[in-house]
This record gives sequence, C-alpha cells and structure tokens, in this order.
Amino acid sequence: MSGPVNVPTHWYNVVADLAGYVAEERRPALQVGTHGIRPQLPLSIYRQSVSKEPFIEIPPAVRAQYERWRPTPLVRAHRLERLLNTPARIYYKCEAASPSGSHKLNSAVAQAYYYKKAGVRGLVTGTGAGQWGTALSMACAAYGLECIVYMVRCSYEQKPQRRILMELNGAQVLPSPSLTTEAGRSILAEDPDCPGSLSVASSEAHEIAQEGEGIRYSAGSGDNHVLLHQTVIGQEAVAQMQALGDYPDTVVAALGAGSNFAGIAMPFYQQSQITGRPTRLVAVEPRSCPKLTRGVYMWDHHDALGNTPMSKMYTLGHTFIPSPIHAGGLRYHGAAPVISWMYHEGLIDAVALGQSQVFEAGVTFARAEQLIPAPESAHAIAHVIERAVRARETGKAESILFNLSGHGLMDLASYDKYLSGLLESDSAADEDVERALAKLEPARV
Amino acid sequence: MSGPVNVPTHWYNVVADLAGYVAEERRPALQVGTHGIRPQLPLSIYRQSVSKEPFIEIPPAVRAQYERWRPTPLVRAHRLERLLNTPARIYYKCEAASPSGSHKLNSAVAQAYYYKKAGVRGLVTGTGAGQWGTALSMACAAYGLECIVYMVRCSYEQKPQRRILMELNGAQVLPSPSLTTEAGRSILAEDPDCPGSLSVASSEAHEIAQEGEGIRYSAGSGDNHVLLHQTVIGQEAVAQMQALGDYPDTVVAALGAGSNFAGIAMPFYQQSQITGRPTRLVAVEPRSCPKLTRGVYMWDHHDALGNTPMSKMYTLGHTFIPSPIHAGGLRYHGAAPVISWMYHEGLIDAVALGQSQVFEAGVTFARAEQLIPAPESAHAIAHVIERAVRARETGKAESILFNLSGHGLMDLASYDKYLSGLLESDSAADEDVERALAKLEPARV
Repeated sequence: MSGPVNVPTHWYNVVADLAGYVAEERRPALQVGTHGIRPQLPLSIYRQSVSKEPFIEIPPAVRAQYERWRPTPLVRAHRLERLLNTPARIYYKCEAASPSGSHKLNSAVAQAYYYKKAGVRGLVTGTGAGQWGTALSMACAAYGLECIVYMVRCSYEQKPQRRILMELNGAQVLPSPSLTTEAGRSILAEDPDCPGSLSVASSEAHEIAQEGEGIRYSAGSGDNHVLLHQTVIGQEAVAQMQALGDYPDTVVAALGAGSNFAGIAMPFYQQSQITGRPTRLVAVEPRSCPKLTRGVYMWDHHDALGNTPMSKMYTLGHTFIPSPIHAGGLRYHGAAPVISWMYHEGLIDAVALGQSQVFEAGVTFARAEQLIPAPESAHAIAHVIERAVRARETGKAESILFNLSGHGLMDLASYDKYLSGLLESDSAADEDVERALAKLEPARV
Repeated sequence: MSGPVNVPTHWYNVVADLAGYVAEERRPALQVGTHGIRPQLPLSIYRQSVSKEPFIEIPPAVRAQYERWRPTPLVRAHRLERLLNTPARIYYKCEAASPSGSHKLNSAVAQAYYYKKAGVRGLVTGTGAGQWGTALSMACAAYGLECIVYMVRCSYEQKPQRRILMELNGAQVLPSPSLTTEAGRSILAEDPDCPGSLSVASSEAHEIAQEGEGIRYSAGSGDNHVLLHQTVIGQEAVAQMQALGDYPDTVVAALGAGSNFAGIAMPFYQQSQITGRPTRLVAVEPRSCPKLTRGVYMWDHHDALGNTPMSKMYTLGHTFIPSPIHAGGLRYHGAAPVISWMYHEGLIDAVALGQSQVFEAGVTFARAEQLIPAPESAHAIAHVIERAVRARETGKAESILFNLSGHGLMDLASYDKYLSGLLESDSAADEDVERALAKLEPARV
C-alpha cells in the first residue's frame, strides 16, 4: 500500500508541455436537421478544453467528491510477480476502488458539477461497456441531474447488470443503435443486426442533446477536458511511487479513446520533462480496434454519422464498427487528438492484443491478486505480463506500473465464457480492419 | 471519511465480558455413517473458540492481509439524512470495500492462515448468497488451498455471477442440496424442489469434510472464532466514531447467524462496560427467518441433518427451510450461541423486516449514497430508515451507525425484479414460521 499521499489540488494539462501541438477542429460538412449545431459545453468546460495552462485548479466541491474515494490505492502485485517468476516489479493503480468501480467517475463528477452550475437540466451520453454510463449516472444522481445513456447494443446484451446498475442510479438506458433517433434509425436501416459502437452511441446522444430542452451531451473520453480530469490518477501515482521508493520505467494503460491512458501517463510525461528521466508510456488497444498501431493519422469525425467537428487523429474511420469484443470500452474508432499527436511524434508507444490473450491475463491477475479486472484493464495486464515474462528472459528488473481502470464484476458472464472455452474468436476482426483501412486510403493526409 | 485509525492488533472476545455465559456443546445423537466425528478445527482455532481472554493477538501475517483493505471507511450518510429530512446522524461502516466485497474476508483470511499452518490441503464450506463462499475462495487462492463451496440452490439460481466469481478464484461450486452427498440425496428424496438453506449446505459440507483426505470444514458464521475475527470492524468503528467527534446511540446490523452483527456490535458492548455509556445494539433479521424475534431458546443442531453438536440458541429448528428470499445470507435457522445468550439476557435488541421494505430501503440508500448494498445489508438500512423517520417525528437527534456488510453488485437481478414490480412476496413465510414453531413446542427447555 501507498504512503500518505494527498488528492491533487489541480488537474495537469499536458498540452502546456507539448510544443508544436495545436488544438484545432474543423466544422462538419453535415448538420443535424435544418437547425445549427447547439454548443454543448458550458464555458467553464470549454475553457478547460482549449487551455494551455499547465495546471487548472480543481474546484473545492469536486475535490471534496474525490476525497470520498481518492487517493486510490497503488499496490505492488507481489503474488503476480511470484507467479510469473519475474525480476520485474509490477505495480497497479487501483481505480476499481471508486464508487462506480472505475476511473470514469473522476471526470463524471467534474462534468456534472460544471453542467449543474451552468443550469443544465440533464445529460445524455453514449457508453460502451457501461463504465462511463455508470459513473455519469452516479454523478447525475449526486447533482440532481437527469441522465440518459445510449449503451452500445452488444455490451447492453453482454452485460445486463450494467443496465440495472445505471437504472438503480436513476438513469434511463437505451440500447444503441435505437429507434429513438434519426441516427439510430438510419444505421438500423442499413444493418438491422448492427452491434453498435461508441461512435454510433455518440451520434445518437448528440442528436438528443441537440433537440432536448436543457439536455446537453457529456463526453466520457477523447476530449481534452476529459483527459485533463483523469490526471488525478497519474499525479497520485507519481507521489505514491516516490513514497514507495521506486519509479516506473514503463507505464501501461488500455486505450479506448484515451482518457484512461492519459490519466495515468501524462503526469509521468510531465515528470520526464522536469527530471529528464524517461518513462516509456504504452497504450494497449484491442487487435479488433487498433487505431494507433494500424490506423491512419488524418482528419476525422468523433461520431459515426459525422455530425461532430473533425479533429486530426489516428482513426479507423468514423463509420468503422469494431467486432463485438467484450472490452466494449475500447470499441472506439479513433484516439484522442492530443494522444494521436504524441504518438505521431514518437512520444508514446502502442501495442494491440487479441481477446483470448487478454482474458487469459485477466484470469491470471484475478487468481494472483484477488481482484477481477474489467476486460479493458485486462488489456493493460496482458501487456504487463508480456513484459514481465520478457524480463525473466533478459534478466532486466524493469519497474512497471499499470492502471487498473475498473473492476470486472459486471463482466463475469464474459469470464464465464472464457473459462468454459466459449469465448468468441476475434481473428476475423483483422479483415474488418483491412477493409476499413482500404476505405480510408483516399482520405490520407 | 474517518481520521487516521489503525488496523487493530487484537481481536476482541466478548465472552470475557459476559459473566454467566457458559460455552457448552452437546454431542449429536446421530453420526455420519459408522465412523466417529473427525475434529474439524485445528488446535489454534479451537483455542480461540473456547477462549475467555478478552483480547487475542492477530498474527502479523493475517494483520498484513487486513492492511490490504483495512481500516475500511466509516462514512456519514449526509445525502441519505437530507433525503429523509431527519435530525438523526447516520453513519455506515463500509465492509463492502474489501476485495471480496464483504466483511466475510476478515474471517476467511484468518481461517485460511490457521488451516494452512495446520497442514490442511483444502477447505469445504456452505454459503448462502455467496459472500462467504467468495471470501473463502479468495483466501484459499491466496494460501494455496483447495476450496469446495456448497451454495444454497435458490441463491445459486438467483445469483449466477457469484458462482463465476468463486470459480474465477479457483473454487469448485456446487448447488445444495446436491446429489454428491448422503445429506443432499436424503433431502432431495423428500423434496426434489428443495431451495436449500445454509443448514442444508452445512450438512453437505460437513459430510465432505468427514470423508475427504486433508479437507476440513470451515465455518462462515455462528462459531465463536468467526464472531471473534469480525471484531476488527467494531474496534475500528469505535476509534473512527471518536475521531469524528461523535458516538452512536444505536448500532444496527443484519443477522444471519451473527458474525456480521457481532463484528460491529461487540466492541461497542465492550465500550459500554468500560464507560458506562450504553449503545443500543439492534440485530435485523428477515421476517421469513426470525429466529431471535420469534424463535425458541433451546438446544439445537447447527446443520439440517443434526450431525453437528447441539448448542443452546434461539432457533426455528435445524430442519427449517426458510422461504427463498434474496438475502440468502440470512436464511439460517439459528443465532450464534453467544448472541442468543445476550438476547436472552436483554443485552441486545432485534427486529424482523419484510423483503419489500428491505429492497425499498436498498434502492433509497443506493440512490442517495451511490453504493448498492447487498440485500443482507439492506435489512440494516431498512431499520435505520425506520429509526431516522421516527427521529424526524420525535425530534430526537439520535446518532445511528450501521454495518454495510457487503455490496450488492452480484444481486442486481434481484434489484431489477424489485424495480420492475416482480419481487416475490414473503408474506406466506409467516405460516412457514408458525408451522416450524409448532414442531418445536415439545422441545422447549
């Protein structure tokens, strides 16, 4: 366990330390209906999303919320090390300890606070596996906001407990694509069996936000302000590692759009700028949705219908529907613009891993450490195990930290499939990715 | 949140403070098969179970385990207070924060430690809702012990996620009554649809423990040593309440056999002996299994088949099968002998509550505090809400502490039933209880 470490007073804005990075958006060619696009961000959040200040103060009310569960534990995985017989030192930052069970609550409470102050009545969002939807439903309950969640259909079916959990928090949960929006109807018309994706759910949520009175769209990842809010994780981890008398050579985190990865990695990037001591920052993505390792760095939309502004990012194309893997939180076509830029500049690394390796790693970790990781987090674990095994072979005693972004207690049916040998193969996903990339060829910039 | 409070160094043994209480057992009339009863407890645990010392040192290795998650938070339920518009101050001790999700791990790691030291190969047990089975499977995984869990059939069917969770920890899980034991077969012969009960699961587990080489029976509640291990909860709570500058007038906890109730209540009983300041200790049991409020104080067995020794306790009869309510952990026919004695002497109170009131309270708490309670814990909450509403009417600003014994993340299907108006009524249970009591009439002592 960690020494006495305080909850950070500020969020860390990596943009301040990225000379050459320009936050830029291009307006969409298409707009919903005939009316214009209604701004979704209150000024308070908008200012954060374009800020170049290195530190932005956490409002005391939000920090008081954080103190309900932060600092989260930073734990050395002794039993996993022994099991792997590795000289590597393995640490995990346990975001599963939040009331919502994942890191997502860090941004959810901040956003609910700002939207509530701005006089908004309710929030609408899209969620994959449901970690973001759960967090937002909790934050909305705490601030007396309505909450509407479009949950990607394949996750809605794989993880029925998630729906109940969000409903218990008072949210309205709809499987996406749905018949409740033009976006959903148009996608279902093309493919009635569409499993959905985060970008489809985003399109639906954006449409509701355009039309519902007092309802605004809340983003669970990708946007700068969301990445910003998550940096409490890494700031605590820097202090906790120092308190333990160690420092990570490598920091590993799963990447959907990037808030989890940025949350733990960016404060270590900042440290490297100060101390000159580099830490390797590794994003782990699923083989079936490899935007960094296989995608194209280009201008693209954030949602499936192309109603959102375009950003320059690594993408598989905003119409790409990843195969229905169980790590629903990673089924997003693009990486956050700032993370894409850093990857393009060689400041961070990325690897892509297949689903059965990921579940094997999840079970190994669970049995060693008595904590069931979310399938998203198990991506990070799978790469940590790869590195730890390599350390055994090379004899190099690497220090590795990863973010355990959430628990897998709502994902037990997926683990049951794995244990029973019934987990779906994701090998066909390679061809889907090839097809998506071929479609993007003309758009390369 | 609490101030800086340490993990206790000793367990508190209430027996030392109960002048007049005599721990006594009577051997069973019947024995399994033709061989004698094999002792199940290693000497280390046996000594604890009969000790009259007020404090028993926690082995450093067990305390190191505790430090992974203890002290658990003690939280003031501000939002619940506001929602109820009550002058009462409501606090909860959050045992849901343990890696297994409940208080049960406090005894599981201690027992696994002692059994491992005694050279045992594996442990077998019975579990109701699965909180104990989950904790024991984790502790066994940590100590390299095999683990066999007989899970009460109605819970096995209501909570499939629990089975998977235990299997993920490497345990073998069987629905009880099963065809794997004589006990199970004899009960199924009488009633093929028997939903099972903790006393039936105990009979099956005891049978395996008698016959399996190197396999011993591990008790999840009721026995003195289990109650003892749980007192880390109350000792921390005493210190945490003092650090918060408050002290409870009333401590509330759900009661199955008694380890949860004893865990939080006994250290407050000890305080009352020292300071003379009384704290009302209230055990909450389900209307369908009301051993304290309606049962008979008599000699009875701990398991359904009557193979275990008899103790004097409040009981509904060891053959009583409670109706299949969702709080499976409370479906046990008797109360721990020491708790029964205290109740008989008027040292503690008890109330019995119906299932729909309990779920209503669970949902109220979840929405206010963003934490889904296990249905067992929701029993305590329902009584706390009753008291808080009464405080509003009387204007008396009572300070109430309850034990949130576990989270309800494996019980979401039950909550879904409640939210959809499909929760089963437990009103027929009253007649079952009447019938059970009529059968006991001749046995009254």
